[in-house]
Amino acid sequence: MPISRQDIRRPTLVLNVERARRNIERMAAKAQRSAVRFRPHFKTHQSTRVGRWFRDYGVEAITVSSVDMAWYFARDGWRDITIAFPVNLRQLDEIGRLARKVQLGLLVESTKSVWALREQLKAAVDVWIKVDVGFGRTGLAWDDATRLTTLAEEVERSGNLRLRGLLTHAGHSYRARSREEIVAIHQESVARLNGARQRLQAVGFTELELSTGDTPCSSVVEQFGPVDEVRPGNFVFYDAMQLHLGSCDEQDLALAMACPVVARHEKRDEFVIYGGAVHFSKDAISAGGRTIYGLVALPEGNGWGPLVAEAHVAALSQEHGIVKAEGHLVRKVQPGDVVMIVPAHACLAVAQMRSYLTTDGKVLKTCGI
Amino acid sequence: MPISRQDIRRPTLVLNVERARRNIERMAAKAQRSAVRFRPHFKTHQSTRVGRWFRDYGVEAITVSSVDMAWYFARDGWRDITIAFPVNLRQLDEIGRLARKVQLGLLVESTKSVWALREQLKAAVDVWIKVDVGFGRTGLAWDDATRLTTLAEEVERSGNLRLRGLLTHAGHSYRARSREEIVAIHQESVARLNGARQRLQAVGFTELELSTGDTPCSSVVEQFGPVDEVRPGNFVFYDAMQLHLGSCDEQDLALAMACPVVARHEKRDEFVIYGGAVHFSKDAISAGGRTIYGLVALPEGNGWGPLVAEAHVAALSQEHGIVKAEGHLVRKVQPGDVVMIVPAHACLAVAQMRSYLTTDGKVLKTCGI
Repeated sequence: MPISRQDIRRPTLVLNVERARRNIERMAAKAQRSAVRFRPHFKTHQSTRVGRWFRDYGVEAITVSSVDMAWYFARDGWRDITIAFPVNLRQLDEIGRLARKVQLGLLVESTKSVWALREQLKAAVDVWIKVDVGFGRTGLAWDDATRLTTLAEEVERSGNLRLRGLLTHAGHSYRARSREEIVAIHQESVARLNGARQRLQAVGFTELELSTGDTPCSSVVEQFGPVDEVRPGNFVFYDAMQLHLGSCDEQDLALAMACPVVARHEKRDEFVIYGGAVHFSKDAISAGGRTIYGLVALPEGNGWGPLVAEAHVAALSQEHGIVKAEGHLVRKVQPGDVVMIVPAHACLAVAQMRSYLTTDGKVLKTCGI
Repeated sequence: MPISRQDIRRPTLVLNVERARRNIERMAAKAQRSAVRFRPHFKTHQSTRVGRWFRDYGVEAITVSSVDMAWYFARDGWRDITIAFPVNLRQLDEIGRLARKVQLGLLVESTKSVWALREQLKAAVDVWIKVDVGFGRTGLAWDDATRLTTLAEEVERSGNLRLRGLLTHAGHSYRARSREEIVAIHQESVARLNGARQRLQAVGFTELELSTGDTPCSSVVEQFGPVDEVRPGNFVFYDAMQLHLGSCDEQDLALAMACPVVARHEKRDEFVIYGGAVHFSKDAISAGGRTIYGLVALPEGNGWGPLVAEAHVAALSQEHGIVKAEGHLVRKVQPGDVVMIVPAHACLAVAQMRSYLTTDGKVLKTCGI
């Protein structure tokens, strides 16, 4: 049913199934061409139903961001799961139970964590050493051979831990200002990660895999280089941030929030939507001196039409969104209408909303945070 | 049970019951001294159980931010509810059913909305005209006598709508840089709202009430002035933003997130917590050139101890929080420890988490967004 006639009463996350499937297919094909394992990050969609679409493109290994999310997908039959977050020592019993059910990968970056895993974890798990290639959030510095070696040795000494490889997240790609810069960040990241591997190879660790793969880099590069697996997540839906970065085209945007219009202020070139921080969260893009919480389209068919140039969500409070728009759009929309907002950050909008209305008319629930 | 020994496995919102009750009591007493109706905004806590605490201090009328939230509290016995959000014409049937159950207040700011209510709403409702006193988000300009009069007349012409008064939200108090500035904003806002009332009185609308009351103004002023009701919400818990504004003292902070520590980077004076944008949302304070997503304390008793000076949450990604802290705290905490984070914005953290652990050991659920 066309979205304009759908019973949209409150902010509703609309998922374009065709586009999401195309995004999955394209990334799976690229991984295959590069002969790397495709281990997509499922924190973006958090849905068993969307997860199953990936199986159609040969995906068998996945990434998640929490123990709870790992359990959610394990219950739906996924058997090879990496929790791409520093291991949380307060969930070791849950992790142990999970490791008996699936091939589980954990991230470590400190000997303290390795010791705790060695002593308290009964089951066997894969371990990835988290490496910082320049983002500066978590991980051992890629060029700190001493600490890398010490940690690798501690893992090897632990009978229940299998040292699988080195893993990084080049999150600084989100600060890039061009596709060229993204490519350069990818190349530098992979070179650094490979440098860390070579340091460990030199002291006898010869079987280490490399895992990388943020969405900007994974989308922009043609060849993944000397890595063994890639873990992009956001690419399944993309969003206003990724469009801004050049990771995707407008036709790849698979997610938009249908929001009722509740007020209009022509003098300020603004209208107000029912759709705020409790629906979108509060990530934003800074572009041309403006802060952009979302891009604007009008309902069309069972989805949405082209993005409206010169319209954007300029402010979010708890339930209000303020859309700045050129006069003609402001005059066109009325309280009671619905507009479609492409969120700045799809993952956070999904984490807030916890359900989708698909363009083929189904309601899908997520696992929640 | 002391929080340090509680089974904190993942980010957990801890609610200090004693402080929240004291915050309610203090605001209720102030409203009584000013002889104004206290109609607290329940969007902050979103919990029937917390809602019931307000009854102990004489509260009978409440504010909510959505039709769904109004239904949630109506089912718990609340009978006088204002939905402080521009009326959503796509929920008129739900509004109509609700209006048969409770005394319902709606906000209007356009003749289009009034016409729709007149034609499509079967039940009788109270109507408040939303007035903009300088915040610039929604509402008719306080000094636009023509539009105020036109709208008031349209409401009066509608048999099912009872014109109750003028309502504003002085949200620009959140931009104030001192308590004096907050007091000045309150005085100006109330004067402007009263100015709008006088303009309408001059053309025959003699029975209009005034409703105001953001948390900064409501907390800082001693006397509410010539208003009939106040609607603060955040004051029940307060948060890092309110502390920064001077709306509260540290001893009033009633909410903190217990977060497991998962990594530590001494060289950068940082540690990493399991606690990110999906737990806190992403509101922040800008202070002294820094962006602050939360303040830091250590567990103490069944709650938390004093705020740690020179420690703050400096970055949030989806599940990670980065705490910047002086060397001694960084050396003290270890992966597996728990730290307590006072969120920048309590309302959004509650909207994300959807449940509390209270200091007296209960788990309370919220209505969700």
